[in-house]
Amino acid sequence: MTPTITAFESSPDRGRGLARDMRVRWALEEVGQPYEVRLVSFEEMKQAVHLALHPFGQIPTYEEGDLALFESGAIVLHIAERHAGLLPVDADARARAIMWMFAALSTVEPPIVDREMAGYAERDKAWYAERLPILDGRVRGRLGQLSRRLGEAEWLDGGFSAGDLLMVTVLRRLETSGLLEEYPNLAAFIARGEARPAYRRAFAAQLAVFTAASGG
Amino acid sequence: MTPTITAFESSPDRGRGLARDMRVRWALEEVGQPYEVRLVSFEEMKQAVHLALHPFGQIPTYEEGDLALFESGAIVLHIAERHAGLLPVDADARARAIMWMFAALSTVEPPIVDREMAGYAERDKAWYAERLPILDGRVRGRLGQLSRRLGEAEWLDGGFSAGDLLMVTVLRRLETSGLLEEYPNLAAFIARGEARPAYRRAFAAQLAVFTAASGG
Repeated sequence: MTPTITAFESSPDRGRGLARDMRVRWALEEVGQPYEVRLVSFEEMKQAVHLALHPFGQIPTYEEGDLALFESGAIVLHIAERHAGLLPVDADARARAIMWMFAALSTVEPPIVDREMAGYAERDKAWYAERLPILDGRVRGRLGQLSRRLGEAEWLDGGFSAGDLLMVTVLRRLETSGLLEEYPNLAAFIARGEARPAYRRAFAAQLAVFTAASGG
Repeated sequence: MTPTITAFESSPDRGRGLARDMRVRWALEEVGQPYEVRLVSFEEMKQAVHLALHPFGQIPTYEEGDLALFESGAIVLHIAERHAGLLPVDADARARAIMWMFAALSTVEPPIVDREMAGYAERDKAWYAERLPILDGRVRGRLGQLSRRLGEAEWLDGGFSAGDLLMVTVLRRLETSGLLEEYPNLAAFIARGEARPAYRRAFAAQLAVFTAASGG
C-alpha cells in the first residue's frame, strides 16, 4: 500500500529541505518505498480535518491503510521497522541506532530550534543581543559533545542508520548559522548524508514543490 | 541479566521524581524487571568515564551486558520492546504508542523545559517579566492541543502504554507552574499515572536516594 504524507503547500524555508517532511521523504527513499504527498496550507493545518490527523497542527503526517501517524521521529522509526536498510539487524546495534534517533530529536534539536525561534520572534527585542550568545552557547555545548563522540567516524555507530538520518536533518537547520564551521567533523558528517542518492532524491522532490508553488 | 541505570547522587529536584531516571525506573517497575542503580555526582557526570557512557553528560544511562544506552526515551522503548506491558501487541496500536513517546519528548517537553530553564537562568534579567508570558503561551498552546486530543479518555490511545508513561513524566514538570490547573483532564491524566503501583514504587525508590543523601 502506498503511504501518503503531508507537507507544506508553501514551505517557509523556500525549498531548502529544512521542514520535517524531508526526514520522512529521505527515509522512504532509503528503503525504496514510493509515496504520495498531500500538500496543506497554513490555514488548513489549523482546521479540524488536519487536527484530527495531527493534534499539534503540524506536518508531516503519514497515512497507510488504517494507520495514521504524526511525529517525524515516530514515522521514520515505523518505516525503519517495516523495511530493511535503516536499522541494524543486531539487537544491541539496533537499540543504539534508535538511541541516536531520540538523541537527535530530544537532546540536539531543542537548543537549535530555540535559537531559530528567537531569531524569528525576538530579533526586534532589546534583549536579543544579550540572549543570542546564551543561545549560541547552548547549541555549541551540544555540538561540541556530539563532535567529540563522532570523532573521525563516518556515522554515529557503525553503518548509516535512521539515527544518522535524523541527526543530519537536525544539524542542517544550522547551515546558515556559522556555527557548524567550528566543527569540521560535523560538517563532513552532514555532507556525507547530503551526498546519499536517497537524500538527493528526497531533496529534489521537496524542492519541486516549492518551485511549482512559486511559479519558478 | 539485571540492568544498571544511573541517577543523580543528589537530585536537584529534592526527590520530587522529576529527574529523567524516574521514567526508566517507572518503566522497569511496570514490567517487573529488577534493576540496580549507580549514583553519579555532577562532577562525575562531566568526567571521561561517564562521558564514554553518555556523550552529553547526563543521566540516566542503562547498561545490560554488552549494551549501553543513554536517552530516557530510547531506554524506555528498549524496555517496552523486551517485556510485555508497555506497548500494544497490535502493530498499528504499537506504532501509535511509540508516536506518543516521540510526541511527549519532541513536541510537548521542549517548551516546558524552556520555561523551566528561563526560570533558572533568566529570572534576574530585565527581560524576564516580558518573556515569561511568551514562554507560558507556548506551553499553553501545547497543553491546549493535548487536552483537546485526550478529551475524556483515560489514556492517549486505548490502554496505558509507554507513550502515556513518558507524557505523564513530561507534564509533571509543570506541577508547581499553576498551568496544569487550567486543563482538568490533563491533571486527571497525571493523577491516573501517579496512582499506578509501578509509579509509586519508582517514586519511592528515587525519593529514598534523596532522603539518604540529605541525611533525612
